[in-house]
Amino acid sequence: MNSESPLSGHISKRFDSELEDIRNRVLEMGGLVETQVNSGLQALLHSDSKLAQQVADGDYKVNAMEVEIDEHCVQILARRQPTAGDLRLIVAILKTITDLERIGDQAEKLGRLEIELTEEGASTSSFVKLEHLGERVAKMLHRSLDAFARMDDKAALKTIKKDFKINEEYDDLSRQLITFMMEDPRTIKNALRVTWCARALERIGDHARNICEYVLYMVHGKDIRHIDYDDLKDQINWDG
Amino acid sequence: MNSESPLSGHISKRFDSELEDIRNRVLEMGGLVETQVNSGLQALLHSDSKLAQQVADGDYKVNAMEVEIDEHCVQILARRQPTAGDLRLIVAILKTITDLERIGDQAEKLGRLEIELTEEGASTSSFVKLEHLGERVAKMLHRSLDAFARMDDKAALKTIKKDFKINEEYDDLSRQLITFMMEDPRTIKNALRVTWCARALERIGDHARNICEYVLYMVHGKDIRHIDYDDLKDQINWDG
Repeated sequence: MNSESPLSGHISKRFDSELEDIRNRVLEMGGLVETQVNSGLQALLHSDSKLAQQVADGDYKVNAMEVEIDEHCVQILARRQPTAGDLRLIVAILKTITDLERIGDQAEKLGRLEIELTEEGASTSSFVKLEHLGERVAKMLHRSLDAFARMDDKAALKTIKKDFKINEEYDDLSRQLITFMMEDPRTIKNALRVTWCARALERIGDHARNICEYVLYMVHGKDIRHIDYDDLKDQINWDG
Repeated sequence: MNSESPLSGHISKRFDSELEDIRNRVLEMGGLVETQVNSGLQALLHSDSKLAQQVADGDYKVNAMEVEIDEHCVQILARRQPTAGDLRLIVAILKTITDLERIGDQAEKLGRLEIELTEEGASTSSFVKLEHLGERVAKMLHRSLDAFARMDDKAALKTIKKDFKINEEYDDLSRQLITFMMEDPRTIKNALRVTWCARALERIGDHARNICEYVLYMVHGKDIRHIDYDDLKDQINWDG
């Protein structure tokens, strides 16, 4: 039977559609995680504890998707024994869903912190500080999922760069909150809660960065983690 | 050529030794990470900024090992196309090294925070609060690596249980530190740094828990993440 036979064609097509299915499931999981993050942010900015509770309660769906996609990947590795690009795709998906699951955990944390803040009667002015950082992080997450969907290495690299700005903004915000606490020690508990929210956002940025790194790995077949950003540009010969 | 032929025996033996090699490298990486965590703790408890700097500077070694083992795993998946238990081992290793790398990041954070605390002239009495939590976390990490080395599901399950105590102790310590800050606002900055140290330790506990879950996955072939502890015991029919 040569490689052009209908049967091998059929098998290969089925494999292609399996890979396509699994990629679509990852994008679905990404969409769910994005919704969780955006809802967590909306809940914080509008002191909407009902929405916050929905976010906190909804994390199990993200966890269930991780387990399902993970099992699917292992099945494909066992049955299809992919090599080269297909293998890199599966390995990258195994890693991506771990980061998506952890972004889900951070969204859940935002929900729980909103509920505590509202219970403690914190003024919404303290949440306002989170708005800009939150928007930046949500945009970065969206871009990283978009880079994944389109396997776009340039978009991935551009998105990685955003993480530096997020870290800077997080550091500034932390410093502001410390000053705030020192000026009025009665605010310490709630200012700390706002700090945990900022930290959750900052960590979502880190995970989005990881996802971008897996996109580069898929496209270039190189592990580019732990490499300086400037070296990175040289490594993939991109001047953007 | 039947399955008893010297050649197939030889090939299989080479595969066995490759798997053994990779497992040993994971244990080496685990040993390095353990050293980083213990040194970070020692640096904190003895205000030893020289040691702290070594820890902060040493993280690149952990990162390099992750990349190397990761590439080795992908090569094995491509060349050997393992199935069943061997495949689960490789997938579990791919996940374990991600957690080990992140434990390394937390150890680095301990080193950096110690340096800041010493520069700010923080009294060692604040670090003492971390001693008990640190010992607990270091022991849990050791046990999780031990469970991995011996593929011991019962030890893994026992070790997972330790994470609940660590989370409780972290919560208590956080509350104490908040009280401390409220009583004397001048201590806020350093008390926050001690809080970040406690949080780094708590996260090391989470990663050690993840490693134990991969041991259960390797041994039982089931993904047991996101399952309640009591359900977990039922799932693997263990009454320990």
